[in-house]
Amino acid sequence: MSDLLGVAVLGAGHMGADHVRRIGTTVGGARVVAVADPDTARAEAAVAGRAGVSVHGDALAALAAPGVRAALVASPEAAHEEVLLAACARGLPVFCEKPLTPDAASSFRVVEAEARLGRRLIQVGFMRRYDAEYAALKSLLDSGHLGRPLMLHCRHRNVASPPHFTSEMLISSSVSHEIDAARWLLGQEITAVTVLRPTPSGDAPQGLLDPQLVLFETSGGALVDVEIFVNCGFGYEVRCEAVCERGSAQVGDDRAMAVHFTGQARQDVAQDYLVRFADAYDREVRAWVTAARSGGAAGPSAWDGYAAAAVAEAGVRALREGSRVTVELAERPGLYG
Amino acid sequence: MSDLLGVAVLGAGHMGADHVRRIGTTVGGARVVAVADPDTARAEAAVAGRAGVSVHGDALAALAAPGVRAALVASPEAAHEEVLLAACARGLPVFCEKPLTPDAASSFRVVEAEARLGRRLIQVGFMRRYDAEYAALKSLLDSGHLGRPLMLHCRHRNVASPPHFTSEMLISSSVSHEIDAARWLLGQEITAVTVLRPTPSGDAPQGLLDPQLVLFETSGGALVDVEIFVNCGFGYEVRCEAVCERGSAQVGDDRAMAVHFTGQARQDVAQDYLVRFADAYDREVRAWVTAARSGGAAGPSAWDGYAAAAVAEAGVRALREGSRVTVELAERPGLYG
Amino acid sequence: MSDLLGVAVLGAGHMGADHVRRIGTTVGGARVVAVADPDTARAEAAVAGRAGVSVHGDALAALAAPGVRAALVASPEAAHEEVLLAACARGLPVFCEKPLTPDAASSFRVVEAEARLGRRLIQVGFMRRYDAEYAALKSLLDSGHLGRPLMLHCRHRNVASPPHFTSEMLISSSVSHEIDAARWLLGQEITAVTVLRPTPSGDAPQGLLDPQLVLFETSGGALVDVEIFVNCGFGYEVRCEAVCERGSAQVGDDRAMAVHFTGQARQDVAQDYLVRFADAYDREVRAWVTAARSGGAAGPSAWDGYAAAAVAEAGVRALREGSRVTVELAERPGLYG
Amino acid sequence: MSDLLGVAVLGAGHMGADHVRRIGTTVGGARVVAVADPDTARAEAAVAGRAGVSVHGDALAALAAPGVRAALVASPEAAHEEVLLAACARGLPVFCEKPLTPDAASSFRVVEAEARLGRRLIQVGFMRRYDAEYAALKSLLDSGHLGRPLMLHCRHRNVASPPHFTSEMLISSSVSHEIDAARWLLGQEITAVTVLRPTPSGDAPQGLLDPQLVLFETSGGALVDVEIFVNCGFGYEVRCEAVCERGSAQVGDDRAMAVHFTGQARQDVAQDYLVRFADAYDREVRAWVTAARSGGAAGPSAWDGYAAAAVAEAGVRALREGSRVTVELAERPGLYG
Repeated sequence: MSDLLGVAVLGAGHMGADHVRRIGTTVGGARVVAVADPDTARAEAAVAGRAGVSVHGDALAALAAPGVRAALVASPEAAHEEVLLAACARGLPVFCEKPLTPDAASSFRVVEAEARLGRRLIQVGFMRRYDAEYAALKSLLDSGHLGRPLMLHCRHRNVASPPHFTSEMLISSSVSHEIDAARWLLGQEITAVTVLRPTPSGDAPQGLLDPQLVLFETSGGALVDVEIFVNCGFGYEVRCEAVCERGSAQVGDDRAMAVHFTGQARQDVAQDYLVRFADAYDREVRAWVTAARSGGAAGPSAWDGYAAAAVAEAGVRALREGSRVTVELAERPGLYG
Repeated sequence: MSDLLGVAVLGAGHMGADHVRRIGTTVGGARVVAVADPDTARAEAAVAGRAGVSVHGDALAALAAPGVRAALVASPEAAHEEVLLAACARGLPVFCEKPLTPDAASSFRVVEAEARLGRRLIQVGFMRRYDAEYAALKSLLDSGHLGRPLMLHCRHRNVASPPHFTSEMLISSSVSHEIDAARWLLGQEITAVTVLRPTPSGDAPQGLLDPQLVLFETSGGALVDVEIFVNCGFGYEVRCEAVCERGSAQVGDDRAMAVHFTGQARQDVAQDYLVRFADAYDREVRAWVTAARSGGAAGPSAWDGYAAAAVAEAGVRALREGSRVTVELAERPGLYG
Repeated sequence: MSDLLGVAVLGAGHMGADHVRRIGTTVGGARVVAVADPDTARAEAAVAGRAGVSVHGDALAALAAPGVRAALVASPEAAHEEVLLAACARGLPVFCEKPLTPDAASSFRVVEAEARLGRRLIQVGFMRRYDAEYAALKSLLDSGHLGRPLMLHCRHRNVASPPHFTSEMLISSSVSHEIDAARWLLGQEITAVTVLRPTPSGDAPQGLLDPQLVLFETSGGALVDVEIFVNCGFGYEVRCEAVCERGSAQVGDDRAMAVHFTGQARQDVAQDYLVRFADAYDREVRAWVTAARSGGAAGPSAWDGYAAAAVAEAGVRALREGSRVTVELAERPGLYG
Repeated sequence: MSDLLGVAVLGAGHMGADHVRRIGTTVGGARVVAVADPDTARAEAAVAGRAGVSVHGDALAALAAPGVRAALVASPEAAHEEVLLAACARGLPVFCEKPLTPDAASSFRVVEAEARLGRRLIQVGFMRRYDAEYAALKSLLDSGHLGRPLMLHCRHRNVASPPHFTSEMLISSSVSHEIDAARWLLGQEITAVTVLRPTPSGDAPQGLLDPQLVLFETSGGALVDVEIFVNCGFGYEVRCEAVCERGSAQVGDDRAMAVHFTGQARQDVAQDYLVRFADAYDREVRAWVTAARSGGAAGPSAWDGYAAAAVAEAGVRALREGSRVTVELAERPGLYG
C-alpha cells in the first residue's frame, strides 16, 4: 500500500516502543519501516517480528533507510538536535518527543534551521493539546464566552519520581508540560518565573525539593500557578482551572469539564452515541480485526445475538399485552459453551 | 502489505461509512478492499477515492471480491441473515452490527449454521462491552469484591427518536443494548420481561409510548430495570448501577466508575500518564501522520519547543536563586506567525 | 418567657430523646415542659436535669401537665391513636412521628376526628419534605421548568436492619418515606403497587426478602420505582431522580441537586455567604452561647483576631510594595497557650 | 426561664439583625435582652416587637442593661475596641464579629486586656471553623492520616464587591478568613506574605486590583496560596485543598470532602439517618413550633399519614401475593383540600 506513510522510529525505549505499537493499531495511515536504537536488541524487541522493518544502531542510518518518508524521535534528549537537523536537511517531516532539545540555545538552532527552510517540518510532543478535556478548555477560552483568562491554577502530581530525578527536573521535565499548555491555552508568552519551595515531603527522596509551587507571569498579564509534586504517593493527577473575567472552567477532575458561569456549575451532556461511545466503537473493531486476522471471532457471539432477539421479542409482547412474559431460549449449542 | 486484513464493508449508510473511515484511521491491521450498497453512489461516497477499493451494488458480489478476507455487515437488518450465511459458507470472519437479524427465529438459523461449522466466525456489534467504564464494571463484578449482583438499574436516554420509530422499537432497537449488557455483566440469561408504561411525554411523537420502564428477571435471581426514554430532549445518557450484596458501582455518570463500599464512595485515580493520556498520545500521532503524509507539520512547533526550553531554564534559575527571573525570548521567526 | 411554646414529649426512646435535645438547642421558640415514657427512668434520662420539666409514666397525664400547649409524639406506633385523639380533644397542636398509626383504618379514624374539628392540629413526621435537596427538587418540579414528571427513581439503603425487622417492614416502615415523598413531589395519589423480589442478599438475615423493588403507579400516570435495601452494608443512602418531559433532576448523590436540561448537567452555585455558611453561623453562635453560659469563651480567640490583623497588615504592605513581607508577631501571652 | 443567657446585640446592621433572628430560632439557650445601634430605628426594626428587649443608641448603655450576661458585637470595626475593653471590664463573655479591631496594634491592646484578666472572654467570628466541611478537613489533618500538610490551595470568590471596596480590603476583609483558616488548619503561624496581581478583570470596578493571588509561608514550612476574586460574577465559592505528604483533601467543591489517597478518590457515605437528615429534623420541628404557637398545624397532614398507611398496606399485600395491588382511598375530607 504505497499510500501508507513510511516512518523511522528513532529510540526504542519506553516511549519509542509504545509509538511502534501505536502505529499499526490505534493510528492508521502509516507503517513503521525502520527502528533505530544504539541497543539494537531493544530495537528488535520493539519491532517484534513485523515484516519489512529494518533495524539500525544508528539514527542517521535509519533516516536514510528505504521507504522512510518521516521520522519519529523518541531517543534521549541529548541526541535530538543532530537528528532534527538531519531530518530538516532531508526535508523529512519529524515528530519529536519533548523536550525539543536539552536547552534553549540548541532549541533555537533547530528553530533557525527550520525557519531557513521556510516551511514547518517539526511537531513537538506536547500531547496535552490533544487531550479531549484540554481541547475543550482551549476551545472555550478562545470563544471568549467567559471573558479574558486571568489565572490558571495547575496541579501536576506523580505517584513517585524515577531514580536520579533532580529538583531542577521538576521544572525542566515535569512542569514543561504546563509551560506549553499555558502558552497554548492563553495564546501568550511567559515573561517571568518565580519558584516557591515548602518544606519537602518526608516521602520524597532525600534532598529533592518536592513539591514546588511555580508561578508564571505572561505577556497578557495573566498569572499561572503550578503545583508540581512528583512523589504524592496516591496517583497521577493533572488538573487545570482557568479563572476568567466571568466564569471558570476546570479540567482533569475525574469528570467532564466543569464550567462555572452565571450562578451555575455546568457540564456538557453527550448528544450522540457516536460521540459517547466513540472509543468503544474503535475498540470493538480493533478486537474483531485481531481475531479475524487469525480467521476466527471473539466478543459477542451469534448466540448473544440470538438471545438478545429472543428477549426483545418477549419484551415487545410484554409491552403489547401489559403483562409479564417469560423468555424461552433454545438449547445452547456447545460452541457457545 | 499482505499482512493487512482485507475487509468488505456491506452497507454504506451512517454506520457503514463510519466503519470505512475507522478502518485506516483509529483501527490498524486492516484495510477496506470492497464496499457494497444497493445505492452505489453512496458506496462510492464512503470510499472517497481510496485506491484499491472495489464498489458493489450487491453484497454477495463484494464478499467474492479479490482480497476480501473478512466482512463487516452494516446493512439493514433484514439483509443480515443471507449475508451471514454466505460468509459462513465461505469461512469468512464477520462483524455484524446489531441486531444479528430482525427476529429470534432467523437469529437461531444463523446460530445453527455457525454451530454446524464448529468454530466461531461471527462477532455481533454490542459495543457496550468495549466501553472502558462497562469493562471496569464487568471486571469489578467478576472479582466478587462486592458480593453477588442483586439488581441493575439502567438508564438509556436519547435526545429525540428518529422518524418512524415505534413503541416496539424502544425495546427491540434501544433496550437491546441493555439486554446484552445485562446478560454479559451478570453472566446470566434473562428469563422474564415486564414492561410498565407511564403516561407518555407530551414531547414524544403522537402515539409513541415513551418513556417505558422495562423489567428483566434473570436465571440467577437478579432484577434489571431499564428506563428507556428516546425523546428526553436534553442528551444521550447511558448509565448503569449494579447493586451487589456488599456495595454498589455506577458507570455512565459523567465521571469515572463510582464504587460505594464500606462507608465510602470511591473512584480510581489514574496511576500513570500513559493511561491518563492514552487517547491524547493516539490523537497527536494521528494528527502528525496526517500532516506528514502531505510532507509538512502542524501542532506544537519547534518555536513552541524553544519557548518551553527558555522558560524552563528561567524556572531552574528561579528555583536555584529563590527569586523572580524574567524570561528573554529571541525574536520569533515569521514562519511561526 | 411566656412566649415559649410549652411542649410535652411523649416517648423518650431514641427519637424522643433526640427531640428533647433539639428543642432548646437547634429549635427556638419552644421549651420542653413534660416528658412521658412508661419507663420513667428513661424519661428522666432524656430530661437530663433540666429545670421545670415534669416526668410522667402516662402520656395522657403529660398532656394534662401545667404549661403544656402542644405535644410531640415519639412513642411506639401502637400508642399513637389514643394520644392523637386525646390531643385533638384538648385542641392541642401535635407533632406525630411517622407512621401516623399502624394501619389505614386507625389512621382514618384520626383523620375523621381532625376533620370533625374543622381545623388542622396534626403534623406527621415525614421529614424528607424539610430536607434542603428535596425542597429544591419539589420547587423545581412545581415550577414546570422541566415539564411534567414521568418517573421517579428512588433508592433507599441502610447499612443493616435492626433485629426483628420483617420483609413487610421494608415497605411499611422504610418505603413509607418514599410513599410520602412521591405523593408530595408529584402532587398525586398512588393508585397501584407492585413488588418485585430478587434473590435476597446473602448478607441479609435468614428469611428476610431484602432487597425489593417497589413500583408505584399514580393518579397522574407517573411511575415510581423504589429500591429498598436495608442490609446494603456500606451506608445510608437516599436518592431520588425525577425524570420529566424535558429534563431530569437528581438529589441525594453526595452533591447538590443536579439538573440535566438542554444538553447540560447543572448545579446551582451559592450566591451569598449567609447561604453557603448558614449552618456555620448557627453552629458558632451555639458554641459561643454554651461557653458564655458558663461565663467563659472558646473558639477563635482574641489572639487569633490579633494574628489575623497582623498578617492582613503585612499582606496589604505586600500588595502595595509588590514584594515579600515578613510577619512580626508579639509574644503570645500564656493565656492562649 | 432564668437559665436562658441574656444577650446584648451591639450593631443592628445586616449581620447584627441576622444574629438577633438567629438567637431564638436556630440557636437555643439564649435570648436577646438588649439591642444597640446609633440608628435606633434600625435597632427597633431588628427587635421586631419582641417582648422584653431594650433598645439603645449607645453600646455601653446596652452592656449595662438589666439581664445582660453576654454581648455580641456586630458594629463597625472601628467601634470594637472600646466595647471589647468595656465587656472585659465587666467580665462579660463576648462574641465579636471579625475583624477583632481594624489593625494589629489595637487588636493587641485587646489581647493584653484579656490576658491581664487571666481568662478568656472573647470569641472572634471566624465561622469557617464551624463549617462541617472545614471541621472534617481539620479533623483529617490532625489525624496525621495523610502525613504532614505541605500546601493549601484556597479559592475565595464573590459575585461582586460592595461599593467602596478597596484593593487592600481584598486582603484585610476577604482573605482574613483564609488567614484564620490556614492558621487553624495547620496549627502554625504565618511568617511571610507575597501578593501577585494579574491584570485586573475588566468586570471589576475601575482601579480595583481584582483578582489577586496571595501567598503565605508558615512557621512549619507550609505554603498557602489564596485566589481572592471579589467580582467573579458567577457565585460565592470558598474552596480549600490541603496537599499532604501522602494524600490530598478538598472541601467546598459542591460535594462532600474528597480525599485522594492510595490510588483512590474517596468520599464518606453517611451511615445514619439522624446524620444525613439532621438539618431536615431541625427544620421540621421548627416549622411545627411556628405553626403550633399559633395553635394550628402545617406540613404533612393526618391525611398524608392515612394515605401513606393505605399505600403501605397495599404494598405489603403486593409483596405477599406477588402481584399488582390497587390502592383504594377513602374520600378526602374538605379540610385537606
